[in-house]
Amino acid sequence: MGLTDDNTWVEHLNEAECWRRLAESPVGRVGVLVDSAPEIYPVNYVVEEHTILFRTDPGTVLAGLAKSPAVCFQIDGIDPTERTGWSVLVKGRAEQIRELPDAEERHRVQHLALDYWAIGPKWHWVRIAPDEVTGRRIWRATSAG
Amino acid sequence: MGLTDDNTWVEHLNEAECWRRLAESPVGRVGVLVDSAPEIYPVNYVVEEHTILFRTDPGTVLAGLAKSPAVCFQIDGIDPTERTGWSVLVKGRAEQIRELPDAEERHRVQHLALDYWAIGPKWHWVRIAPDEVTGRRIWRATSAG
Repeated sequence: MGLTDDNTWVEHLNEAECWRRLAESPVGRVGVLVDSAPEIYPVNYVVEEHTILFRTDPGTVLAGLAKSPAVCFQIDGIDPTERTGWSVLVKGRAEQIRELPDAEERHRVQHLALDYWAIGPKWHWVRIAPDEVTGRRIWRATSAG
Repeated sequence: MGLTDDNTWVEHLNEAECWRRLAESPVGRVGVLVDSAPEIYPVNYVVEEHTILFRTDPGTVLAGLAKSPAVCFQIDGIDPTERTGWSVLVKGRAEQIRELPDAEERHRVQHLALDYWAIGPKWHWVRIAPDEVTGRRIWRATSAG
């Protein structure tokens, strides 16, 4: 934990804590390269054995990661009132998966409660295998007002 | 507006609506290239004459955009209960600015109510000039349950 000013601290979240938050969050954001520039799109996802699974339509995201599989995945929680927040960043590589490996996994991901960002019937599954998972949390002294 | 299934519609937000949402959101996410891979970091920001201004410490974000100024900036609002949401994406170019151009702007950005992601005293100002601003919103029929 590092002191950044009189009122603010940064706590680095360990990997287990990052995965705990990843397992709980309903929506994350995938960062993908499109024409050599980053783009960010919200996705619904599930965590499966320390990988991120999401589905997407055959549009920008899918085209981008086919060309450049180095992607990232980010979640956060921000409290504007308390002026605190946390963020988790997964850096890794994405691959389109043709078939979900087992029945239980297939059942689970096909019953995602939240799928509003998976547009249209022709969606595809993508898996992100992580190379690095980091997180941080900002604390503020309540006296900061 | 496009129908995606029996319960879900996608509305594309026009640029004016995107800027309205950008002006209201306290926190956004900058997407930046670091070693040829995208990374996403939350930032506090202000909108100034159709550009995005934020500050950052002399770390990953600043190093990344110095090498690769093609960046993006994203905000969203997700309602897991209603299974609706919206997202705005700004694609553009970032430049570090040494000095804020006028007193009023300086006053405004130095009094950002929310600055928890600007860590440490040695922060730098960055401005994103947009090339493209797009947004979409997901509607669901309430009968979708």
